[in-house]
Amino acid sequence: MSGPDRMSGVLSPVITPFKADLSVDAERLARQCRWLLARDCGLAVFGTNSEANSLSVDEKIAVLDSLTEAGLDAARMMPGTGACAIPDTVRLTSHAVKLGCSGVLMLPPFYYKGVSDEGLFRAYSEVIQRVGDARLRIYLYHFPALSGVPISLDLIERLVTEYPDQVVGIKDSSGDWGNMEAMLKRFPGFAMFSGTEGLLLKNMRAGGAGCISATANVNPTAIADLAANWQAPDAQAKQDKMNELRDAFQAFPLIQAMKAAAAHYSGDATWERVRPPLVELSAAEKSSLLGELERLGFEMPGLAETRAA
Amino acid sequence: MSGPDRMSGVLSPVITPFKADLSVDAERLARQCRWLLARDCGLAVFGTNSEANSLSVDEKIAVLDSLTEAGLDAARMMPGTGACAIPDTVRLTSHAVKLGCSGVLMLPPFYYKGVSDEGLFRAYSEVIQRVGDARLRIYLYHFPALSGVPISLDLIERLVTEYPDQVVGIKDSSGDWGNMEAMLKRFPGFAMFSGTEGLLLKNMRAGGAGCISATANVNPTAIADLAANWQAPDAQAKQDKMNELRDAFQAFPLIQAMKAAAAHYSGDATWERVRPPLVELSAAEKSSLLGELERLGFEMPGLAETRAA
Repeated sequence: MSGPDRMSGVLSPVITPFKADLSVDAERLARQCRWLLARDCGLAVFGTNSEANSLSVDEKIAVLDSLTEAGLDAARMMPGTGACAIPDTVRLTSHAVKLGCSGVLMLPPFYYKGVSDEGLFRAYSEVIQRVGDARLRIYLYHFPALSGVPISLDLIERLVTEYPDQVVGIKDSSGDWGNMEAMLKRFPGFAMFSGTEGLLLKNMRAGGAGCISATANVNPTAIADLAANWQAPDAQAKQDKMNELRDAFQAFPLIQAMKAAAAHYSGDATWERVRPPLVELSAAEKSSLLGELERLGFEMPGLAETRAA
Repeated sequence: MSGPDRMSGVLSPVITPFKADLSVDAERLARQCRWLLARDCGLAVFGTNSEANSLSVDEKIAVLDSLTEAGLDAARMMPGTGACAIPDTVRLTSHAVKLGCSGVLMLPPFYYKGVSDEGLFRAYSEVIQRVGDARLRIYLYHFPALSGVPISLDLIERLVTEYPDQVVGIKDSSGDWGNMEAMLKRFPGFAMFSGTEGLLLKNMRAGGAGCISATANVNPTAIADLAANWQAPDAQAKQDKMNELRDAFQAFPLIQAMKAAAAHYSGDATWERVRPPLVELSAAEKSSLLGELERLGFEMPGLAETRAA
């Protein structure tokens, strides 16, 4: 269950820019991805915070093509590919593997609730067999608050036993350290990403792989630094500082707050756009967020330079 | 808010038969639809109980084409079309309208939770405007237990005010009579379908339109009879008898139980197949269900004749 091909470090569920007609602005997205890569953040495009579940499979395939055609390194990508319907998951996952993505982040089918481990095992099995590509590396996506479909330890056990080369890690967005700790103990070598940088230091100390965190969109340098230097004496101080910034963002709807920050610090207001059912921050919320960020001395260095001419 | 073009009566969220490779068996589905229509049940294909959220949009479009090409009346259809991503909802809804479906049953985008009424209003608005067809008739789909995204009365108010000709009814699968009663009072003329035949008589007496119920797949004649004759003196006795049968099915995972019954009474075992993440009934569950159905004197008359030669 261990191998040289596990991803690690910090990945950002890259926020997705939209044009006025709400289509994906692939060029702006490519620039944002470059900005993140230059700060040692990998690209978990099509994460929850990418509004990925508001995009069709066709749109996601087109975006992946655009990003790789723009010269972004697929080896640094872990796109989210899990959909409600197996054919959708298979189509997007196959495409990601063919493009050379190092891994995919896979939600379980999330409409039907209260389903059994046997049913979820069959769902993941079906996808793995249909994709049928030895290069496939799956990172399970445990996010019960949004998916409503938790991934149990027994399910992971079955999956890593049956598919040791394919099911190689997990992103745990439950925020439940007890669950992460239990997985780390039971599945040594399994690549454990915390869904928040708030648990990054704990996770690294316990043998985890890193984090895939929303706020890596806005604070990539500090988070990547802690992931790389978690053994340094000042690691806890860095963790505490990161937490303070995360709290500032989390006081608001998170996706919209990150987009408001991206808009403000890049000078490109189009970043504020979200797809329904999300709604952008109100003027009052935005002002409150930006005031707090200023108080904290927050910056997004280099972001303004990513703005299109 | 009233009009002659509201659908009414009983519709079945038609169970979906699968081939051995788990692709949709459109011919078997067409035969099942005919069996239901002959029993005065309309076709709410692609409902929750159709495992619709385990099918891709492409699959659903192909199935709708097959059904209409097989001569089934689109005017009797209310396909489920609501997806997480607006482009998916728009594509399937547009197709249904073009084929002449009398209405569509539309879940809200259901991945992101805790979204505001404003966000859901924008989501439905965006779909209505993009479909851009005066023939569109939307029945909202309120199913908080599975979608995790409830449809509030205030949201309905905004939608019927802004789109009185498009947003014409609702299926309430909350099982909460208080909610249904409140909607019936606040929105006279709004076509109210209960999500269970357990509330059919109450709903008809309060001015509702009918029901769209899972068990209409197995007990269509009795349910359609009560919807048509709810003013008859023996209506309550009929309701009680229906409830007894519904309870027998609901003691098991419902979709799988209905498929097991369809398999047994048609003599066509392929009906038992489900798509992951669902799992068919165990042998013990099946035996228990069929024993109870026999005890209740349950039959599915005419179903065996629908079996392919």
